[in-house]
Formats: sequence, structure tokens, C-alpha cells
Amino acid sequence: MIQDQLKTRVVGVDVNVDKTTCAVVDIRGNILGQSDFVTSNYNSLGDFITMLTEHIMQLAEAHGGYENIRSVGISIPSGNFRTGCIENAPNLPWKGVVPLAAMLRDQLGLAVALANNAHVMALGEQAFGAAHGMRNFVVVSLGSGMGSCMFSNGLVHLGSNGFAGEVGHTCIKPGGRQCGCGKQGCLETYVASRGIILTAQEVLEESPEPSLLRQVEQLNPKIIMNFCEKGDVLAIEAFRRTGYLLGIGLANYASVFNPEAFIFAGPISKAGRWLLEPTSESLEEHVFHNLRGKVKLLLSSIDDEIRNVLGASVLAWEVKEYSLFK
Amino acid sequence: MIQDQLKTRVVGVDVNVDKTTCAVVDIRGNILGQSDFVTSNYNSLGDFITMLTEHIMQLAEAHGGYENIRSVGISIPSGNFRTGCIENAPNLPWKGVVPLAAMLRDQLGLAVALANNAHVMALGEQAFGAAHGMRNFVVVSLGSGMGSCMFSNGLVHLGSNGFAGEVGHTCIKPGGRQCGCGKQGCLETYVASRGIILTAQEVLEESPEPSLLRQVEQLNPKIIMNFCEKGDVLAIEAFRRTGYLLGIGLANYASVFNPEAFIFAGPISKAGRWLLEPTSESLEEHVFHNLRGKVKLLLSSIDDEIRNVLGASVLAWEVKEYSLFK
Amino acid sequence: MIQDQLKTRVVGVDVNVDKTTCAVVDIRGNILGQSDFVTSNYNSLGDFITMLTEHIMQLAEAHGGYENIRSVGISIPSGNFRTGCIENAPNLPWKGVVPLAAMLRDQLGLAVALANNAHVMALGEQAFGAAHGMRNFVVVSLGSGMGSCMFSNGLVHLGSNGFAGEVGHTCIKPGGRQCGCGKQGCLETYVASRGIILTAQEVLEESPEPSLLRQVEQLNPKIIMNFCEKGDVLAIEAFRRTGYLLGIGLANYASVFNPEAFIFAGPISKAGRWLLEPTSESLEEHVFHNLRGKVKLLLSSIDDEIRNVLGASVLAWEVKEYSLFK
Amino acid sequence: MIQDQLKTRVVGVDVNVDKTTCAVVDIRGNILGQSDFVTSNYNSLGDFITMLTEHIMQLAEAHGGYENIRSVGISIPSGNFRTGCIENAPNLPWKGVVPLAAMLRDQLGLAVALANNAHVMALGEQAFGAAHGMRNFVVVSLGSGMGSCMFSNGLVHLGSNGFAGEVGHTCIKPGGRQCGCGKQGCLETYVASRGIILTAQEVLEESPEPSLLRQVEQLNPKIIMNFCEKGDVLAIEAFRRTGYLLGIGLANYASVFNPEAFIFAGPISKAGRWLLEPTSESLEEHVFHNLRGKVKLLLSSIDDEIRNVLGASVLAWEVKEYSLFK
Repeated sequence: MIQDQLKTRVVGVDVNVDKTTCAVVDIRGNILGQSDFVTSNYNSLGDFITMLTEHIMQLAEAHGGYENIRSVGISIPSGNFRTGCIENAPNLPWKGVVPLAAMLRDQLGLAVALANNAHVMALGEQAFGAAHGMRNFVVVSLGSGMGSCMFSNGLVHLGSNGFAGEVGHTCIKPGGRQCGCGKQGCLETYVASRGIILTAQEVLEESPEPSLLRQVEQLNPKIIMNFCEKGDVLAIEAFRRTGYLLGIGLANYASVFNPEAFIFAGPISKAGRWLLEPTSESLEEHVFHNLRGKVKLLLSSIDDEIRNVLGASVLAWEVKEYSLFK
Repeated sequence: MIQDQLKTRVVGVDVNVDKTTCAVVDIRGNILGQSDFVTSNYNSLGDFITMLTEHIMQLAEAHGGYENIRSVGISIPSGNFRTGCIENAPNLPWKGVVPLAAMLRDQLGLAVALANNAHVMALGEQAFGAAHGMRNFVVVSLGSGMGSCMFSNGLVHLGSNGFAGEVGHTCIKPGGRQCGCGKQGCLETYVASRGIILTAQEVLEESPEPSLLRQVEQLNPKIIMNFCEKGDVLAIEAFRRTGYLLGIGLANYASVFNPEAFIFAGPISKAGRWLLEPTSESLEEHVFHNLRGKVKLLLSSIDDEIRNVLGASVLAWEVKEYSLFK
Repeated sequence: MIQDQLKTRVVGVDVNVDKTTCAVVDIRGNILGQSDFVTSNYNSLGDFITMLTEHIMQLAEAHGGYENIRSVGISIPSGNFRTGCIENAPNLPWKGVVPLAAMLRDQLGLAVALANNAHVMALGEQAFGAAHGMRNFVVVSLGSGMGSCMFSNGLVHLGSNGFAGEVGHTCIKPGGRQCGCGKQGCLETYVASRGIILTAQEVLEESPEPSLLRQVEQLNPKIIMNFCEKGDVLAIEAFRRTGYLLGIGLANYASVFNPEAFIFAGPISKAGRWLLEPTSESLEEHVFHNLRGKVKLLLSSIDDEIRNVLGASVLAWEVKEYSLFK
Repeated sequence: MIQDQLKTRVVGVDVNVDKTTCAVVDIRGNILGQSDFVTSNYNSLGDFITMLTEHIMQLAEAHGGYENIRSVGISIPSGNFRTGCIENAPNLPWKGVVPLAAMLRDQLGLAVALANNAHVMALGEQAFGAAHGMRNFVVVSLGSGMGSCMFSNGLVHLGSNGFAGEVGHTCIKPGGRQCGCGKQGCLETYVASRGIILTAQEVLEESPEPSLLRQVEQLNPKIIMNFCEKGDVLAIEAFRRTGYLLGIGLANYASVFNPEAFIFAGPISKAGRWLLEPTSESLEEHVFHNLRGKVKLLLSSIDDEIRNVLGASVLAWEVKEYSLFK
């Protein structure tokens, strides 16, 4: 069967609580076109799928045509790659187990793959980012929560039930801070957004020193970072403590897994050296001695704006082509 | 090339500080013959290799002949599978980096593979033991130290530098007990032999209660286990505390890796339910909620006597056949 | 979750046109018990599944109990591992696409895997037979038809649609003998049973020499082999011609695939050196020069009686455990 | 260890008999700069390596600096990926087994990988070309010779000795045309350049019809293609016969391997439909019936000018980073 036209484009979709973004992406990771809509306007699943289908069809037509689109990849919270379902996403409007991949495939007539954000980020970093050429590495996402995904022997590691990567819920302080997951002392309660704010408040309470932080009513990590840049000693101390605990958490991860690198993405990773330096110091102190100086700490080299749709485009290539019409 | 005779046997070797054991093993894991010698009688590397070669040759001749031996696998502390070297083994007489696999191959004229004990145990459990049929699992060895090896996607995970699996040196209590590795609070300092004894002593000091333990001059884990069987409350408490911390360590491992099972081997695993029950309770308490009730705790189903030579025989099949004589 | 009892046995099933055999097999490939029934007595699929379920349940109870059976593997003509279906088997009574694995799973409450005979044989040879320790090899089954299965990089190669391995239908003589598949000159028309008989008849017609073959009304490969053993020149010539063409077919296979070995099983492989010697000669003559002397020809080292159920037991371990009751 | 700068570029090198081309390539396959020199001017291996080193260093400096180059990949005839050696290349000036990768690494202080052309082409097509998203496919190179490389389960298949892919030396006509390899009837003798010319001459001799071909003293495939475009019946017939045999060769390949596609590159593939149509027809006629209509025939979607250096750049990422200086 001589095949004249090869499908050379995919659609990457990033669904998050606020916004859903679709992009047409070519084989080399070039974003050819992009559009988005407000996720929370579509609390009915049917309406959401209709809207998503429309956006994808319009984008496809505007950038080479539907017949040139090979498949679709979706990054979505609580997405399970193995089943193609969203499974009990706490922050999305659609409850329970939702077979989004199958439903969208039937609408579009195209193969659809779906995965959670850390998985998609890891695919993106390996294909086009900081992990290119690495076979054993970990991508860590730091923001309002903390997630991770690792590659082992060049393959994504999803674990026996597809739940691997919950480093944010490893216990870093037995009996420590209360986590939303119900447990205490989870790493996430110290190094994700709310944890950093809490740590800054503790630093302020413990110290009599003046600080720019004292003038702000509603702290957030970005403000604290800005004050670090201005040399605020207590802001720096807040990130130092954060990095210390993050370093222990990652040292434990590294001692067991021996990755070539941890690659950070997400808003908190913007703290740059204020976070990375104490993290690195603590990691080196706590990691198994044979690994000292061997595990790289890297920032994602992909732009925030496109990281998720780019990763989702890589995911799209993982499924076989499919057509309802043949 | 018609090949009449297929080589259907391998030699598995287990080198530990005290004793070196060699066995001829067939494809199905039957031990056809076995012999051993005292490792520490051969502090010169040359003498050790000569002795090992002699034992292997005699065993081979006694069980089907040298020409029927395909290859040799060695389980050895600090063995690096990728290089075939022993690398800075703290307790073996031969210092530095020793290319044992290459040296033995040149003596025997047979392919030789070498790996550390946890790696070899994992191969053995997958081929013939509790992990048969599993693709993502962890083998944990508990004795004078604590080591582990995991499989990911059906493949052994050695990590970027071959040092993966050091769960014994993950930090379970920041600022905790001093470990021989130089760090503080390593899991091993609580759950390996000396750690359990120390915990028992702490329990005795803290409690006014009577205990059989108080009558023993030199405690060891086996004695403590025996007293558990007799219902000694403080002995049981010592294992309860041990299991609590082991449960946290394994919960963190599981939250990141999502293995189907942890499979325990080594002398401490003999504590059975005195250790496993509090471990399981603590693991369920500390693991990421999606994994509750999902991670199995298993004891190795292979006899202690043959576990290492059997695992080493599986390793022997991982190398290509080789002969000096063709 | 502490798991006390590990399931250490599986059931291997071999369905062929005449007979269906079930066996309980342990991790090391020991057949603990076996029973069979006449396949063709159960032309209704429902009756067949009922009978198969009964045999499996009785065997299980007789050998350690149902609760000790982990899963079931089935070797069946036209079995597709990826779908668990029999797909258009020409010689079985159940037509079309039959989801046998799912149907049996629902009866038994156990995970069921299914594959075609060559696939199952390759698994068996790798686990317990001549291919143990090999990463790139081919298993060739020779009988009334010719099938094959290859391993690449240690993994079974099923191809893009699951139809890999049809070496029997490679064209060895453009415009040659008519094959049942509709094409002409297929390797199978020369080297499978009917092909060998035809070749013997051609030899008899072409030659004026006396031959034991001339006294037999209904030739079959076994008779021809027997006459080879008695030194019958024309019988030997029939196998020489067969081996010559088989050697070309396998040389082509080897030049493209570079396997470590071809491993033969099935009734025709019983011809031993009468077939293998001319095959080897022809293979060496026709294979790419760099591979001369490098590709081994081996006979299966597993007994005919148990080859298929043993391979099917290996297959059984490839599926995840499953229970209807939890 | 915080790593500020990530190395984001590699050098791809294509060595062929006439010309050696070097290119700096980024992660997404963009060629940033390129230079070449005449291979045959450097018959001394030392001189060649010196020249190659100079070109690479100059290119690196001109495009982001040496410190930004991660590694080097080389496409070279008779290159063995596993050893890093050129092994007995018939047409290159350096005889025997030449450890080019190690020698160049020592000159450059960078990791160097090396492979034969078909292997490199397959990597390129998977990363950036027609095979993107495929897990089982074959790349076929057609020019003065015929080579191939296949992927199985998403991994390159090199075979037991690294010699897989010699489809050009599969026997398509027992007793047929004499091949340079010493055998008769190799597919290459019919479908590579000289074979096509020979076929055209046979067609001319057999037919009394007029043809543009009769006016040309020294035929070559390009001329014959041009005459096809002009409607020359005998030129078309020459390609028809070529395609018929190519179709049988590929049908045999497909029946055994079941690839998703054959992807053609090299000068002969320029014949386009004059070759592909009869090839496709013959393939469909000769392939195992279950595969009819299932195997795609595709032309490489990468420009000839950059195919090899692009593929070599993909190869460069397969080796670990390395530096002489740390």
C-alpha cells in the first residue's frame, strides 16, 4: 500500500482547572497554532467535550487540515495513561472515573492518549528539553502541589497501579504539618506554595529582625522570591529551610533511584538559586555517599507557556493511528 | 552450524565475608552440586581466584563436565554488574576496584557476570521466587545492613551510575542515629541488626517493666525474636518501633515507585509477623492514599541456603557465551 | 498488606484440532498434573468452554487447590495474544473472531492469556529450553504447516499487527508449488509434511533407482525418515532437496534478522540430521557472508509431550493476577 | 550539583567514500551549520582523524562553542555500533577493524558513537521522519547497494552479531545473477543500481521495440527514470521487472516481520511511482494474506542533503556524556 501523504502533525491539549489549551504541533516540536478556553465554563462533561472538539477541529483546519492530524495527546490532572480515564480528580468539575480519551476519540475520529501532568512533562523534557539523551531521570513539578515522574532504562516508570511519582506525599517529618491528603509531614506541606508561605510565617515569628515580608498582608512564593532578590534575610531564610527539606526528600529519592538528574518545573522552580542552592547543599549532605556530586539539579529548558502542550504532543505519538472511517 | 550439545548448566557463586559457595545449577533452578570454602583464608586476590577456579572446575567435573557449563554468575558485596568489578568493598580483603569477572573469565575460559547481593536476589525472586510474574517490585534484604533492588517495567533498575537501591541510607530521622556511612538518621541505623539491638536497649531503659531481655548480656535480633514468641512485651515493643520506622521508609519508597510488592529476605526478615505487622500498619498509615491496601509485603519464598547461588545462576544466563578456545 | 500465601502455580492449556490438554505447572516448569479431552467433541463454543473449565477446576483441586492457581495460559492455532481472541482459525470448529480469553476468565475467575503456537513455543524455549539465555533467536515449527516466532532484544516480536513469523509463506520459488494460502512457491509447500511427500514423489519419478519408497502406497514424512535410516538413497535425496530449500529460506531469514539460533520443533524436526545437514549446508551457502558459521541450528530440548503446555504455562505468568471476587 | 548550562547540541558526521560531512544539530533536529571535505584525500587514518577533528572544532566554535557540544554521532559504511569500530569496509581506504569512535573521542574529549548508514537512517526517520510514532518498521536504502534496518518493539534490531538488515543479500532467484558478495541471485543484483541497468539491457535485448534507452551509451538509473517520465515503454518495463522482484523480497521480509511500513531512501527511491507501483503490486501478491493492504510503502520525508547527518545527530544522543577533563 503506497501511502502518499504522511500525517505529520498532532494536537497537544493541556487541561487545567482554569484553562484548556490546544495546540497543533509538528514532529520537531514546533507549535504551529494554539487556542484556549476557560475550563470552568463547561461543568457538564458533554459541553466540555463539544467545546474541546470544536477547538481542535478549528485549529486543525487552520493549520494544515484535519487530514494531516495523526492523533491527540492530553495532559490532565489525575489522568491515567493506562485506562485513558480521568480518575477522581479533586479539582476538576467532572467527578468519578471519566473515560475522556475514548469519548473524545469517538467525537474526533482520531486516536487520543491521556496522562497526568508529571508524566507529560517527563515526555516533553526527554523529547525536547533538559532530559534529552538521559535514560534515568526525574522530573519534579513544584507549584500548588508537588508531583514527579521518573524514567528508568529509557522508559517511563508508572508503577504497578500507575500511581508512581508521589514524592510530594513522602513523609519528611513524622508527625509534622497536616497535609490535605490526610497524612502528616508530607514533603508537599513544606515545599509547595502553601508550605513555603507557612515557613516564611514561622521564620517571621521566630526572628525579631526586620523584613520586607512583614509589610505584606497576603504572602505568596513570588513575593518571597522578589524579596530574596532584594537581599531580605528572612525571605532568604524561608527558602533556605524549604531547600533543606526538599534536599532531604530528593536525597532519599536519589539514594533509592540514582537518577542522572532532577529537572524542576512549575512556578516554585522560578525561585532559582534561592531554592536550588540550599536544596543542592542538603541533597549532597543527605544522599548516599557514592552519589555525592553525581546527581544534577536542572531547571526545565522548555518555556512555561508551551511545556504542557508540547509534552502532550509527544504523548500523542505514543498511540497507534486510528480512524473511525476505515 | 548444527550444534549438537547445548550447554544447560551454569555455576552460581556467592561470595560473602565468611564463606564462598559455588553451585552447579540447571535451567530450572535445580542445584546439582555445591561446595564452599572460607573466604578469609585467601586474603591474596590471586590465591582467592585460584581457589575459586579449583572449586568451580571440580564441581563442574563432578556434575556433567566443564563442557556442559555455559557461564558463571557471582553475587558479591559491592559488585558492579556494569563493570564486572568489586568496587571498594568495605568488608572484603581485596581493596580498591578489582576486575574479578575478567580475571576469573581468563582463568576459566567461561563468561563471568558479577553483581551485588540485592541485584542477584531480585533476579532470583523474579525467576524462581515470590516476584515471578511481577514487573514492578522491590526486594529488600535485612541483616547487618539493609539493601534493596527494584524492577521497573520488567527490567532491573540499576540507576544512572549503578548505585540504585540504597534505601538503608535514606534519611528517616533528620539528626537521628549516627550511621557508619557518615550520615545521621539512616533507615539502616534503626532496622538492621545493630539498630534493632539499640532500640531494644532504649525500650528497656525507658520502661520499668520486667523483661527476659534484661537477663541477656549480649542481645541480638534472634534472641529478641525468640522472646517475642514467648510473649515478652518489651521485645515485642522493640520490633514494633522497628516496624514503625521501616513502614515509613517503605511507604516513602512505595509512594514514589508504586511497586506491586516488597519482598523481604535476610536474617531480620525471620522476625516474621513481629516485624511485618507493625511495618504493614505503618506503611498503610504513611503511604499515598491511592496505594493503601495495594502494596504486598512478602517473605522470600526461596530457602536461605540457596538464595544467593540460585540468584547468581540466573545472573550467569545474562551474559553471552564465551570461550577462550575458539 | 501482608500476603501469606503466594500463588505458585499456573495452568497451561494446549488446544489443537484433535486434543485439548491442560496441565498444572509450577514456577520451575514442573508438570504437576495433566488431563485432556477430544477437542472435536465440543463443536459448540459454549460446550467447549464448559468442558475446559471443568478440566481446569478438577486439575486445580487435585494439585494444590484452586486458590493456589495464579492464572491460565492457552496455546491455540490463530490465537492473537494482543486481543485474547482466536481469529479465523481455519481448522477449529469455532468460526470468526472468538474472545476465548475473556470468556474463560469469566468462567474461572482467573486471568487468562492466549497466543498462537509458535509464540508459546518461543516462550517455552526461552524459559526452559534451548533458547535460555538468548536475546535474538527464532523458533521454527515444522509439521503439517510451518510457523515461526522470533525474539528481538530479549522481547517477543509480534509485529505491527501481531502476524509476524509467517516464514512458511515466504516465496522461495516464484511461480512454484501452489499453496493452500492462495500463493505459489511458499516455503511451506516444500518443507512441511505434504511438501516433503511431494518432493519424494518427484524424486521417485525422476530416478530409475530402486527404493523402499516405491513399495509404500501412502507416503508420509515419518516413513521417509525411517527409510533414510535404512540408507535408502532416494529417501535421503528427498530430504536433501527439502533441506536445500529450507536452507535458502532460513538463510534469507538470518541475513535480515541475524538470530543467534534457529530452534526446530514439530514432527518434521524429528528427521534430525537427514534434514539438518542439508539445511545447514544450504544455509551456509546462501546466508550473508559475515554470518557464515555464526547461526546455530538446534533441536528443541523440551519433550514433545509437554512443550505446548509448558510454553502455555510461561504465557500464563505474562498476565497480571485477577480475581472476580475482589 | 546544580548544573547551569546544559549541552544542547551535538555533531552529526556522515562519512562516505567521496565526502565527509559534519553538522552541528540542535535537539529539535535543526542543522545550525555544516561543512565537508573530500574523504579520499586522507588515506592515512591519522590524517583523516586530524582533519575530522579540525572540522568539528571549527564548526563547534562557529555555532555556540565547543562547551555546548554534548557528543558526536557518525554514520559510516561497515560501522559497528556495538564496538565503535569500522569493520572491514570494502570501499574505505582504512582496512581491517578500525576503532574510530575511541580514537576520535580521545582527540575531541567528547563521547562518540558510530553506526552503519541503515541504522543511522532508521534513527533519523524515527526521530524526525516518516517512522515517527512507529514501533515496528523497516528503513530500506537503495542505491549502489541495498541495506535495511528494522525497529522491533520500538527498539533498533541489530541482531545477535550486529549484522542484521542484509536484505540486499537475501536470495531472490536461486542460481540467479552473480553478486559481488560471492553468492548468486541476491536481491541487490536486481534492484540496486547495477542490477537495474542490467535489467534494462535485458529488456532492450528481448524486445524489438524502439526506445530512448537504445541511444544512450552508458545507462544509469537516473537516465532510465527520466525516460520513464517521457513514457518510454521499455524504461518503464525495466522498472516494472525491478519492482516485481523488489516486491517479492519485501513481501518475504514483511511476512516474517510484519512491519507497519517500509520507508525508502537513497538514489533509487527517486524512481518514485515507476518503482513503487510495481513493487506494491508484487508485494501485495506475494505477502502473507493476512497482511494484504496493511504494510505501508513510504518515501523518506527527510531531505537527502541532511538525512545522514541528521540521523547521526540522533545517534549522538544515544551515548552518555563524557569528558576527558573531569
